[in-house]
Amino acid sequence: MTTERWTDDRWARAALSRLVEPGDKAVHGMLAGHGPVETLRRIQSAQGALARFAERVRRLDVQRDVAVAEKVGARLVVPGDGEWPAGLEDLPVPPWCLWVRGAARLDEVVRRSVAVVGARAASSYGETQAAELAAGLATAGWSVVSGAAYGIDGAAHRGALAVDGLTVAVVASGVDRVYPAAHATLLRRISATGCIVSEVAPGSAPMGSRFLARNRLIAALTAGTVVVEAGLRSGSLQTLNRALDLNRPVGAVPGPVTSMTSAGCHNAIRNRGAVLVTSAAEVIELVGRVGEGALDEPRGPVLPADDLDPDDARVHETLPRSGGLDLDALLSATALTPMVVLAALARLEEGGLAVKKDGRWRKIASGRT
Amino acid sequence: MTTERWTDDRWARAALSRLVEPGDKAVHGMLAGHGPVETLRRIQSAQGALARFAERVRRLDVQRDVAVAEKVGARLVVPGDGEWPAGLEDLPVPPWCLWVRGAARLDEVVRRSVAVVGARAASSYGETQAAELAAGLATAGWSVVSGAAYGIDGAAHRGALAVDGLTVAVVASGVDRVYPAAHATLLRRISATGCIVSEVAPGSAPMGSRFLARNRLIAALTAGTVVVEAGLRSGSLQTLNRALDLNRPVGAVPGPVTSMTSAGCHNAIRNRGAVLVTSAAEVIELVGRVGEGALDEPRGPVLPADDLDPDDARVHETLPRSGGLDLDALLSATALTPMVVLAALARLEEGGLAVKKDGRWRKIASGRT
Repeated sequence: MTTERWTDDRWARAALSRLVEPGDKAVHGMLAGHGPVETLRRIQSAQGALARFAERVRRLDVQRDVAVAEKVGARLVVPGDGEWPAGLEDLPVPPWCLWVRGAARLDEVVRRSVAVVGARAASSYGETQAAELAAGLATAGWSVVSGAAYGIDGAAHRGALAVDGLTVAVVASGVDRVYPAAHATLLRRISATGCIVSEVAPGSAPMGSRFLARNRLIAALTAGTVVVEAGLRSGSLQTLNRALDLNRPVGAVPGPVTSMTSAGCHNAIRNRGAVLVTSAAEVIELVGRVGEGALDEPRGPVLPADDLDPDDARVHETLPRSGGLDLDALLSATALTPMVVLAALARLEEGGLAVKKDGRWRKIASGRT
Repeated sequence: MTTERWTDDRWARAALSRLVEPGDKAVHGMLAGHGPVETLRRIQSAQGALARFAERVRRLDVQRDVAVAEKVGARLVVPGDGEWPAGLEDLPVPPWCLWVRGAARLDEVVRRSVAVVGARAASSYGETQAAELAAGLATAGWSVVSGAAYGIDGAAHRGALAVDGLTVAVVASGVDRVYPAAHATLLRRISATGCIVSEVAPGSAPMGSRFLARNRLIAALTAGTVVVEAGLRSGSLQTLNRALDLNRPVGAVPGPVTSMTSAGCHNAIRNRGAVLVTSAAEVIELVGRVGEGALDEPRGPVLPADDLDPDDARVHETLPRSGGLDLDALLSATALTPMVVLAALARLEEGGLAVKKDGRWRKIASGRT
């Protein structure tokens, strides 16, 4: 990545990603009013209220940050670039820029994407569900966006990779950092086909506030957010809250009520308007555009007489399996009116549950097929 | 139970419970227009459309049915009796009468009651949840109404009995019948303090159509219905549908998405408007009257900084645990505006997460207590 042909705007945004924490409202206002070059100039002057940046300005070295990015094959993406993803403008304070590492074009890989997030301290049930959900989404052509953390996040990335799907890790540190360290291989696999994204400069450390800011990016980059497993205070619920702020659909996977790692999901369904989802198909129905992935209600095997109203059931249970009864015999046996019995017989015949032969009715053993 | 002082109306209703299946719309219309005595007289004439009752009329023996009831200590309850429960008039076709067996007064025992129902083929998870839910409801003074079937129903009755709570079994056969046979002891325990209820005459056999009719009674007798575990085609979902028909609140207990016995519950939450419930307290919130059993959202342990917005979190994580930082140092370290930092400090102090001493701020280790 050579910076020689960089515009001043691009350079300024790279500098801002080192100087200014994500979500800074004052800088966002300045940026909107005066653009990145003037905003950077003011911050570098460190006058007045901007004195708070003085220490960071002293240490600023954009060329060094770019060199770090270059070393790991990362690139800078700024608003106006073809690779700048849609959806970020819905945020109260969008990122100044994005550092992207990996084979996928960010705008393309998140165009049809779902956030699959959850607790670090996940159960084996939760990790299995996250992986299966992600695999199902990836198979259906949806990218899986998550945070590369232990537990649900990692399982979601792995589930997508397992079916050669695309997955995106949005991280709270610089894209060069490997965090958590044990996910080095996972992050390498993610970037081989998908990408790793961060709004803070290369070399930046992961900090609590940056995780919170990162969560809003996950929500904003995706068509919707699904929480697979979360305790009542799981940070992943903040991603869900950010998605709600953005009016994006949110879902949550249920689990045993005895599992504290599902308590946050159940609460989200009860109190936050999250939709209960149990499969990739249901997630796609939730986040998909109109006409895409629409689902019928799940149906169990169709059994004879399992969904009849009482009169129909009464007629059905009275019918013999062989031989047959004529109408008079049926009326007497069921103690129902002729009108009710005839209507029931019509419905049963229509449903493949009864058949008339030589004026006598009998039930069909196997029901509809 | 002597019938000598029975009114003709009472006698006629007892006869109807032998002659006419539950839910018979034609007979209901006649009853509403002409009362039980005239309705019985017409049915006994077995003329015209009423010829369908001829066979049953021939075999009618009310005195025998009463004797059977007497033998098991059951009594007849009809509209107008003090014991006639509220809520049945909401049904399109209320029962002609009720046969009640047990120590409890029916109207009193169902006044504060919840239906806890579910699949016969329940899992051990489901049975445990049904029992715990029922025990919690009974402990809070709610009666548990169910159908005495294997699986969830039985577990619900047992859970209530385990805490000396009241429980009511609504059955599809005559109240003298023990069905299923293996629940003889359970039914005896239910009737010792609660009661067993049926709308069909003593001696009547359980039939499929009567189970469907019975389900509507369970829904109508209770303040709301909770399905604990149900396959996609479980009959217990019909109880839920009848409760919905009656505009009664319905709930469903979630479970692992891998469990087919929870699939009906998940579908009810997704597609039928059932409220996800995980505890007796949540059920009481669902079915309780205004101001009764209102619940706060469940809260995890309050941890420092686990629910802060990014700016507050940033300030909090920057504060040392000992010594302290003055405002200038904080501004430089956080790179936030003075206004943001001061507001954050105020919130942190208010929340017990930070303290100021000698002009220097530090974080408090343990958070709110």
